[in-house]
Amino acid sequence: MVDSARSRPGGRTARTRTAVLDACVAELADRGYAGTSVDAVAARAGINKATIYRRWGGKDGLLADAVETFATHQAHPEALPDTGDVDEDLRLWARSVLATLTGPTSAPVIRALFGAAGDSPAVRDLRRRFWRVRSALVIPVVERAVDRGQLPPGTDPEDVVKHVGAPLYYRFLVLDEPLTPHAADQAAATAAAAAHAGVYRSGDPTD
Amino acid sequence: MVDSARSRPGGRTARTRTAVLDACVAELADRGYAGTSVDAVAARAGINKATIYRRWGGKDGLLADAVETFATHQAHPEALPDTGDVDEDLRLWARSVLATLTGPTSAPVIRALFGAAGDSPAVRDLRRRFWRVRSALVIPVVERAVDRGQLPPGTDPEDVVKHVGAPLYYRFLVLDEPLTPHAADQAAATAAAAAHAGVYRSGDPTD
Repeated sequence: MVDSARSRPGGRTARTRTAVLDACVAELADRGYAGTSVDAVAARAGINKATIYRRWGGKDGLLADAVETFATHQAHPEALPDTGDVDEDLRLWARSVLATLTGPTSAPVIRALFGAAGDSPAVRDLRRRFWRVRSALVIPVVERAVDRGQLPPGTDPEDVVKHVGAPLYYRFLVLDEPLTPHAADQAAATAAAAAHAGVYRSGDPTD
Repeated sequence: MVDSARSRPGGRTARTRTAVLDACVAELADRGYAGTSVDAVAARAGINKATIYRRWGGKDGLLADAVETFATHQAHPEALPDTGDVDEDLRLWARSVLATLTGPTSAPVIRALFGAAGDSPAVRDLRRRFWRVRSALVIPVVERAVDRGQLPPGTDPEDVVKHVGAPLYYRFLVLDEPLTPHAADQAAATAAAAAHAGVYRSGDPTD
């Protein structure tokens, strides 16, 4: 309604943006990168495709925004782990990864991004965007743990985060095994044990 | 030659088998599961397709044999790690996984099996076969380490092996990051540290 859009500046624009990005992620989940088109997203969102071209430039700009927004929302930024205990924080993070890989709406998106045959530069760019957004949200959790002395000095936070997610994606994409809470806790415990043991200390970057 | 086939019983049959399985893996790497056909494999191997149907029943029987044979050869069974030091054994195993993921002929096979959009039951069956053959080769290495007391009693060897491979497949399929010897050593050190810390002890299988 015009009135409510006027009373909350940007309200209608924000709603349009959300509708388009949701439609774009839904198309990606349903049809993969190659099958996603601006026309279909516009139809699904119930807007004119000219709006998409004007705002996002085209398919790749739209997908980039959609995937980054999806990555942010999936990570539940309002509930990022900060219990003061790094082992528990990593466990909660692994549970968040688990939720993404098992969610009825999110799992197909992950499959479209990472299980897709697509070795195209465009898909690889979307993967990188997803990973950058997700990791940027949790890396501070590990940095705080290093600062508190819970992890050895020089620990590379990115390495820790990668080793939390790896076993879960491996189950999902490679082993085709059930993603259980136990698997998430084990993935987090694996990365935590290695981090405590100093496996991710930098300073020996021979390659 | 007929003579040499006669002088080594099964020699020609074995050579035909090798030629067909090699051709099948090459087709899989080039065209993925969906694009692989008995006709094309027969043509590539230079044999009559009736031979394939007689011996393997059809496409799926052929692919199953081809993938299992590929998995066995990739694992260099003649050089399985057995240094007496489980950390070093796991490191050598991770280097073998690395070799598979970076080999010019093997990497495309792995992409066809695991990076394929294919969520078909047939592809999932091939994935399971690949994993079963590979893990069966290295699990005894971990079992010996438990028997020697180098790892805690009750350690699940399969969990250890999975956590060695996971970070490397994650880099390959998800992160699109370079697969370096350092990454392999870090993956092995991660699983080893967690195993030493008792992360893979069973006895608490709540789910």
